[in-house]
Amino acid sequence: MNEQKMRSTVIMQSPPAVASSAAIGGKKEAEGPMGQYFDKINDDPYFSEDTFEKGESQLQKQAVEHALRKGSFSPEDIDILFGGDLLNQCTGTTYGIKSYEIPFLGIYGACSTMSEGLLLASLFVDRNICKRTMAVTSSHFCTAERQYRMPLNYGGQRTPTAQWTATASGALVVTAEDKPPYIRGCTVGKIVDMGVTDANNMGAAMAPAAFSTISTFFEETGMHPEDFDHIVTGDLGAVGSSILCSLFEREGTDISDRHLDCGKMIYDPDTQDVHAGGSGCGCAGSMLCGYFLPLLRSGELHNILFAATGALLSPTVSQQGDTIPSISHLVWISHERG
Amino acid sequence: MNEQKMRSTVIMQSPPAVASSAAIGGKKEAEGPMGQYFDKINDDPYFSEDTFEKGESQLQKQAVEHALRKGSFSPEDIDILFGGDLLNQCTGTTYGIKSYEIPFLGIYGACSTMSEGLLLASLFVDRNICKRTMAVTSSHFCTAERQYRMPLNYGGQRTPTAQWTATASGALVVTAEDKPPYIRGCTVGKIVDMGVTDANNMGAAMAPAAFSTISTFFEETGMHPEDFDHIVTGDLGAVGSSILCSLFEREGTDISDRHLDCGKMIYDPDTQDVHAGGSGCGCAGSMLCGYFLPLLRSGELHNILFAATGALLSPTVSQQGDTIPSISHLVWISHERG
Repeated sequence: MNEQKMRSTVIMQSPPAVASSAAIGGKKEAEGPMGQYFDKINDDPYFSEDTFEKGESQLQKQAVEHALRKGSFSPEDIDILFGGDLLNQCTGTTYGIKSYEIPFLGIYGACSTMSEGLLLASLFVDRNICKRTMAVTSSHFCTAERQYRMPLNYGGQRTPTAQWTATASGALVVTAEDKPPYIRGCTVGKIVDMGVTDANNMGAAMAPAAFSTISTFFEETGMHPEDFDHIVTGDLGAVGSSILCSLFEREGTDISDRHLDCGKMIYDPDTQDVHAGGSGCGCAGSMLCGYFLPLLRSGELHNILFAATGALLSPTVSQQGDTIPSISHLVWISHERG
Repeated sequence: MNEQKMRSTVIMQSPPAVASSAAIGGKKEAEGPMGQYFDKINDDPYFSEDTFEKGESQLQKQAVEHALRKGSFSPEDIDILFGGDLLNQCTGTTYGIKSYEIPFLGIYGACSTMSEGLLLASLFVDRNICKRTMAVTSSHFCTAERQYRMPLNYGGQRTPTAQWTATASGALVVTAEDKPPYIRGCTVGKIVDMGVTDANNMGAAMAPAAFSTISTFFEETGMHPEDFDHIVTGDLGAVGSSILCSLFEREGTDISDRHLDCGKMIYDPDTQDVHAGGSGCGCAGSMLCGYFLPLLRSGELHNILFAATGALLSPTVSQQGDTIPSISHLVWISHERG
């Protein structure tokens, strides 16, 4: 690897471990093909609270609780928690995790939050800033519809390119233990804006950001798609995934045989009527924490790139006719320490 | 310093330097007592754009441009930029900085953003993750009123405890150079929620968070208020500042002779009708970048604690009757490297 050329990519010095992780979901997520990989399912979209927003905070509270318990950690064992979500001012996170009293750094990366949190949590342990860190994120179909589109009661029609925001959360604990899976490196993304203005076609807006970050990782490390079992994106959905594969194809690289997208995995397109697939911070967050990390722990998978993608728009700027800037951050996760 | 007991505080190993910084302001900020410390003043609240939100993005664009230019840096010299603001989905930052194409990590800490960004930027340089980093933040009176309270045209009355969101931005560059001022350490805050629900009294909501973080720093390092020229808070304003001093007094510590609050400094209470003082990410951001850092560079100041404070509420949760959780992150800045 050419250190001089590595502006965006960081290789871990003592690859930290993901000591535990947990995924929480809602009813629709339980009914999908990945239902068995959630640690807990909540049938009630209110999570026994009186608003959807308070419900979303419960999602994160549960995810942190389960991730701590599965690793036999208490909140006092964690030095810093990195978290964020899609809600205005990231209230899903702040109201969800405040009772744990863990030192907290709020992050905003839209649906790229799980990879942003994981890369920060990993770098802090790798560089001995902390002993143990956590990352958490969530999304909720009902809060996202109300905030970004229309309240559910309005009964708006969804376009064919629209995605379904997952009601889900993922949380994980990073430590310096020598136990797989390990975080081997990461690439911090740049904002990419190709001029897409259709807020119902996020996949198209985000695919170029994923392409930019993943190809930067390959360029800077000299590694190749064949070095990985899977190249996992967050929530490009059907539309964005096919754009991503085309962008690589144009460069003479075929990633289609190893590319997976959490937005395409989480729901069954034939029976669940989600149009272009799943989306939301919780989609990539829960698939990473519930599905990929356990497979990397057991050794069924050896190396993946996890590149969640975020569309950095707001309803305000959309109404003002602005384009949709996007970003993708990447984390290299491995069964081997190197 | 007792390393065992340092959960929240990190002492830098090779204290990085703030190589340059810039503060941008609006008309009201120019008319205040700190007007001379801004690098650039914009009389037009639209910044020649067609919406206030796009204007706020110009604030950040200008701040980054000036901070780069003052240090003779180009965007390519910067490895990671940390930024965020108060707008939904942090669009002030994303639309403001996207043209620089700098690898970007979005953060959300409400008005604590400047200290969160500075601590992350410093740790990344200190632990050799990057060579050069930046932090940027902003706030804008007109965007904040529209989003958090009422559009300006509504002409709402302000309560005596209300604060005035500064139209301002601060940006800085952190490097490994041996040139003052240096970042010596930081304390990551916890979310503190004392049950305040009045969104027009943020100072009262945030003062306990500042108290928690500043006293944690003293406990964990064994240092004392007398070790610092100033203990600077972000935007507690008149109400929050007096609560903070009382909280310390209750513990037998008098900080009133060295406590300064950016929200109390930025406007003249007698002539500028700002009620309890200034607020917004750009208030602490511009006072740090325009006023304190140059004094720490020249040696007129030797040691300060900079503890910006953020109220982590959203209009949605306020309307749902929820309390206001707050957070404060602290950075120790010094003329000496140690």
